[in-house]
Amino acid sequence: MTMMNKQVRLASRPDGLPTDSNWSFDEGPAPEPGEGEVLVKVSHISLDPAMRAWMNEGATYIEDVKVGDVMRANAVGEVIASNTPKLEVGAQVQGVLGVQQYAVAKPKELLVVDAALAPVQSYLGILGWPGMTAYFGLLDIGKAKEGDTVVISGAAGAVGSVTGQIAKLKGCRVVGIAGGPDKCKYLVEELGFDGAIDYKNENIRNRLGELCPKRVDVFFDNVGGEILDAVLSKVAMHARIVISGAISQYNNPRFRGPNNYMALLTYRARMEGFVVFDYAARCGEAAAEIAKWMSEGKLKNKEHIVKGIESFPSAFLKLFSGEKLGKLILEV
Amino acid sequence: MTMMNKQVRLASRPDGLPTDSNWSFDEGPAPEPGEGEVLVKVSHISLDPAMRAWMNEGATYIEDVKVGDVMRANAVGEVIASNTPKLEVGAQVQGVLGVQQYAVAKPKELLVVDAALAPVQSYLGILGWPGMTAYFGLLDIGKAKEGDTVVISGAAGAVGSVTGQIAKLKGCRVVGIAGGPDKCKYLVEELGFDGAIDYKNENIRNRLGELCPKRVDVFFDNVGGEILDAVLSKVAMHARIVISGAISQYNNPRFRGPNNYMALLTYRARMEGFVVFDYAARCGEAAAEIAKWMSEGKLKNKEHIVKGIESFPSAFLKLFSGEKLGKLILEV
Repeated sequence: MTMMNKQVRLASRPDGLPTDSNWSFDEGPAPEPGEGEVLVKVSHISLDPAMRAWMNEGATYIEDVKVGDVMRANAVGEVIASNTPKLEVGAQVQGVLGVQQYAVAKPKELLVVDAALAPVQSYLGILGWPGMTAYFGLLDIGKAKEGDTVVISGAAGAVGSVTGQIAKLKGCRVVGIAGGPDKCKYLVEELGFDGAIDYKNENIRNRLGELCPKRVDVFFDNVGGEILDAVLSKVAMHARIVISGAISQYNNPRFRGPNNYMALLTYRARMEGFVVFDYAARCGEAAAEIAKWMSEGKLKNKEHIVKGIESFPSAFLKLFSGEKLGKLILEV
Repeated sequence: MTMMNKQVRLASRPDGLPTDSNWSFDEGPAPEPGEGEVLVKVSHISLDPAMRAWMNEGATYIEDVKVGDVMRANAVGEVIASNTPKLEVGAQVQGVLGVQQYAVAKPKELLVVDAALAPVQSYLGILGWPGMTAYFGLLDIGKAKEGDTVVISGAAGAVGSVTGQIAKLKGCRVVGIAGGPDKCKYLVEELGFDGAIDYKNENIRNRLGELCPKRVDVFFDNVGGEILDAVLSKVAMHARIVISGAISQYNNPRFRGPNNYMALLTYRARMEGFVVFDYAARCGEAAAEIAKWMSEGKLKNKEHIVKGIESFPSAFLKLFSGEKLGKLILEV
């Protein structure tokens, strides 16, 4: 019996928001694992804002996806064939497996995940790179500490929702910025944020003034654009601005930066970028702490699951339209 | 005999580059020092880019100058009358004395300078706030160390020329960005920079690529605008961008920031602002080290002196037109 492998490939580079014409669907026999390799049946594919950057020509912190290649994506799945003693059939693994149903990989490219501790797809979100981004960005780069006022953009997203909850656990005052009243209600009522700003319907600067009477010590920015400028106008002395992403600008051919950056001088503040992969060696420690908080009911995990690999093009757009809550995952 | 005091006042707030109509000249009797005060005869007035920011309504890191007030300026002069045992007639002092010939001040507002160690006006430049800005910005914020590639914008100015020379003394590779071939020649031939880029006539990005083969570890930015974006495109991993000023934007009503700021993420880099006044307690240490380097012939001081308080409006514009080399000073 030949297993058929559906794949999504990058057909052309987008100009702005990706459209259907930027993707092509392919179907062929599943690949055979070579010596020292395994075959993984992909169960869940992660949809991340960074993937939009990978579609552009020229590397940022990682090489671009070439036109014609299977779209790069983080994913989890089960080992269904193995040509190496290092990884047994039945193991649940996470890795850069691509937008496809079956992938061949070497054991060193995969991380075995513990399906008893948490559902496998949570290793793409709260226990995966998004959770690690929240943890290290907030604590290591942002140096958030008790009593700080922490503002988070993209606060209802995979990274932002975890960042805000960790900041609350650390004794910070937490204000989230998100799009729409439902998300804002969710942040305050379900996740325990001290306040939320609906950027689609409220004046961000006025609301920051109301919700952050001592100004902003840490800004964890996933969004960029106008929101970054608005928060810069409210930073406290020695503030830390953590550049985690700039989702508002990824589809903007005229990428715009923060015109208010001289607030860094006035407030002796720092803006710093980071790439979570640099923290690979410390992810075990962070994941253990996050898992403990989850088991104690102190940290909630929210996932938005879309089904079927055929849904990839439309599901991917939800990252930019904001029509989702928490971590966006494609169930294959 | 009544001494007459010529003063320059802010007549109106400028929109863009200041014009003659933004200034008014005033002449009246010199003020009388009150109890506990001294009268200073101003000899030299410092012309600094920050003064342009003080002319705008609304504070940045310091209160704005009010319309009708004597223009705020740092200056040096001699105590010619004293009503306090704390300061004797004949002392040479530095302080925020304003654009005028005579000023009344309290001893705690003044710093006694050593005219035997260096000419008094050097306490407005290399031994004053500009020198301190160079020292602490490069070493404390920029953390420049041996082997680093350091790029400086406004490199032929009061701050930039000292920054580059200190970086050379610390064993860095130093590249300056300045306007025009004469300034670039001066940086390399007289100040010992490893390279210079003429932003008026050369392609900054191409030249940075040639002169900084290992990319840029520290960027000391006095200029902002396009130059900041160009250098961001060439930063090295873990680079430090020191925001000292943004002279290219001070007269721009649509102040623009760095559109390339996502380089901070890609290169795990940091952009940080500072205000030199925060280092007041450590300035003695820095000035002693700079004076020692000067006495050993390792650090050159360059001043551009314009004479006559009437010349203030036109002299001030040289800060923005770039028609000067080193520290711009008005000799009263």
